[in-house]
Amino acid sequence: MPSRELTGYRGRALEFLSKAKASIGDVLEARTEWGTVTGTLVPRYQYADDTHVVLKLKSGYNIGLAVSKLKSASVKTKGEKPAFEFEPPERPEPRVGLPRVLILGTGGTIASRVDYRTGAVHPAISAGELHALIPELSDIAEIEPEILFKVFSENIEPAHWSKLAARVKSAVAEGYSGVVVTHGTDTLGYTAAALSFALQGVPVPVVLVGAQRSSDRPSSDATQNLIGGVSVAANATFSGVYVAMHLDESDDAIALHRGTRVRKNHTSRRDAFLSVGVPLAAVWRPSGIEQVAPDLPKRGDGARFSPATHFDGKVALLKFYPSMPGGLISAVRSMGAHGLIIEGTGLGHVGSKDIAAVKAFVKNGGLVCMTSQCVSGRVDLSVYDTGRDLLRAGVVPLEDMLAETALVKAMWALGNSATVADARAKMLENLVGEMTLRRLPG
Amino acid sequence: MPSRELTGYRGRALEFLSKAKASIGDVLEARTEWGTVTGTLVPRYQYADDTHVVLKLKSGYNIGLAVSKLKSASVKTKGEKPAFEFEPPERPEPRVGLPRVLILGTGGTIASRVDYRTGAVHPAISAGELHALIPELSDIAEIEPEILFKVFSENIEPAHWSKLAARVKSAVAEGYSGVVVTHGTDTLGYTAAALSFALQGVPVPVVLVGAQRSSDRPSSDATQNLIGGVSVAANATFSGVYVAMHLDESDDAIALHRGTRVRKNHTSRRDAFLSVGVPLAAVWRPSGIEQVAPDLPKRGDGARFSPATHFDGKVALLKFYPSMPGGLISAVRSMGAHGLIIEGTGLGHVGSKDIAAVKAFVKNGGLVCMTSQCVSGRVDLSVYDTGRDLLRAGVVPLEDMLAETALVKAMWALGNSATVADARAKMLENLVGEMTLRRLPG
Repeated sequence: MPSRELTGYRGRALEFLSKAKASIGDVLEARTEWGTVTGTLVPRYQYADDTHVVLKLKSGYNIGLAVSKLKSASVKTKGEKPAFEFEPPERPEPRVGLPRVLILGTGGTIASRVDYRTGAVHPAISAGELHALIPELSDIAEIEPEILFKVFSENIEPAHWSKLAARVKSAVAEGYSGVVVTHGTDTLGYTAAALSFALQGVPVPVVLVGAQRSSDRPSSDATQNLIGGVSVAANATFSGVYVAMHLDESDDAIALHRGTRVRKNHTSRRDAFLSVGVPLAAVWRPSGIEQVAPDLPKRGDGARFSPATHFDGKVALLKFYPSMPGGLISAVRSMGAHGLIIEGTGLGHVGSKDIAAVKAFVKNGGLVCMTSQCVSGRVDLSVYDTGRDLLRAGVVPLEDMLAETALVKAMWALGNSATVADARAKMLENLVGEMTLRRLPG
Repeated sequence: MPSRELTGYRGRALEFLSKAKASIGDVLEARTEWGTVTGTLVPRYQYADDTHVVLKLKSGYNIGLAVSKLKSASVKTKGEKPAFEFEPPERPEPRVGLPRVLILGTGGTIASRVDYRTGAVHPAISAGELHALIPELSDIAEIEPEILFKVFSENIEPAHWSKLAARVKSAVAEGYSGVVVTHGTDTLGYTAAALSFALQGVPVPVVLVGAQRSSDRPSSDATQNLIGGVSVAANATFSGVYVAMHLDESDDAIALHRGTRVRKNHTSRRDAFLSVGVPLAAVWRPSGIEQVAPDLPKRGDGARFSPATHFDGKVALLKFYPSMPGGLISAVRSMGAHGLIIEGTGLGHVGSKDIAAVKAFVKNGGLVCMTSQCVSGRVDLSVYDTGRDLLRAGVVPLEDMLAETALVKAMWALGNSATVADARAKMLENLVGEMTLRRLPG
């Protein structure tokens, strides 16, 4: 076992640091082949290699130095006490009487560690390590971590949604107070919508949690998002599927977004996720949970719980653009798509010359629905000729539904309906808050 | 000629109203086959039919009543004075010494009138009528209206951009102080980007103006947007291509957005257009023009004006979604696309199984570029494995460029380059403010 002062180091790296009399938290001056680096010695994760020493630079960034390239190192300033708390991932005894929360790992930044050789971030940390990284979790709930799969979120597909939904379904039967799903942020919104449709009437909170910055970075949002998410899963008085992410750039508040109304609207900000067209569902702060939307379903007994976890992945999404050939719509159909979500312009339009292809898609038994690439607002196919032509062609207008939610809903509707007409009827119904009734014009 | 009190009415409608002793602005009680309607008599446009009487209801909406179905009508309240100014479209004598502004009509809501039989909006009003509807324009500039084409904006294609750009080019040679383009809002952003690339170094302001509400509606933004747009075209000290639309829901200010940074972000709000990733270029108010961005090109002599008005329409836009088949990318290639803009997730990702198709596209001489469906923020293909694989496949990362702007730029770059390598180099260069240099990480 490595000494407490050199947590995570082993092999050649441990030998090198021991010789330099260095401890975690010391400021080291390391001489390499290419120059001198000064930084604070940080601990390694449990499964790190044994060939690198990692220093946190003044900038807050970590640098990994190959032991083989290190000439020597000396302690510049002795750390007063270990500057980093890093317990080996031993599970603490659960406190009696706390709510039980299942944490399902799927991969993504919240469960990432940096590969110090390439600087790349890999979805690799185990749920056990997560537990160890955030000891606060043990004060909130009796945590049961479980890795369901480990994939980058851009590789998550309808089959993963089904697997997740089925696991949440059984977790409800097992009596968990709530479920947290850790997920890469890229497609977090799609998965949140998928669980919303698959788990209608779920009696406990199901909270998807991501992070925009990996957990080794000084500005990481991983810890606070997870604490907020677990608190809501354990204690919220409402049920349903939500996304828990930073409300703003501060660490003070975590926003809870409805699973069908949330969108990743920025590539990198910690408050990248926004509720579109509706207010936030709730806000978590260290002081407690504030419910913002009055109409959230209450935590319940599951009498209305009707899981339907199948998805028909053969639905396509096309965003219309100037000069888009109708042939693209026909190609989607030839590739065997059962459904098509169009992101039209403005109120929901495509070029007149594309309407024939849309018509043929519907005539061949396909489900074609219209959303808007504007993101905000609502489609209305009754205002202009083009819209009315699309209605006549059989296009289903999806009011103010997000295009991403519409895609997922169509996959769910086609996966759980006997006929296309059935699926079409489901698309026009507001099932889990995915669309609002049309306001009166004015 | 109809009397001044019944402007626009003729034939049977004029006869009916004359008999009822009604004038424009009177509150009428009209008895129809199906009930009684009360509203204010409004004027008709010059080319309206002669079979309907139009009343403005308390709600602000107009209703067209067929004369054949009208039993009778009586004046309930006499209008104190005509409540609506509507001059027949006779062109006033231009005032001496005003700047000359060319107004190019393309169709769309700003040039629409309502079909009172169906309630639909048609892009039909002539530029002459526009002039008559907004007499203020004659105080701002010597207006030269010209209808270039009349199409819904969802039908505008690269060939239209070329035609528009060529006309602006000749207008510059003809000595106009500025050019205004009226355009439907659906694809206004795409056209603004197209003119930005085609007219680099244009020495005068080129202002695209749209309207979210047709000009017969009480909340129409058509008039104010056009007044703002013409003022900027006539008087701004800066040059370049801009979009002029409401800054907020009030009529007090018109925002000027850079042509390469603007997006329609709401289906119906008057302030639907937003500048993404950069501040506004300028704001017009009745009191004057306030330049917000310090780096706008100055109105000049055209020494740097290098129009390149050709576009290669064979570029596709695909928005990635969970379970998108790589086959869709191959299909685009089979359909003869020379370029492909991908709206990836997050920092610019697609599913791992789609990367082979991307690679094949590039290997076959295609130009493939990456943007993000997040809308805001910047792609970064160096953080995750998927991104690095895409870089190795030959994908061009487009920093913080909007996907819509990227599509238009690729069409322009391929249309004005000898080789794909040339086009690729243009994509990575910031030509007209379409992307900003990468910030340092932190």
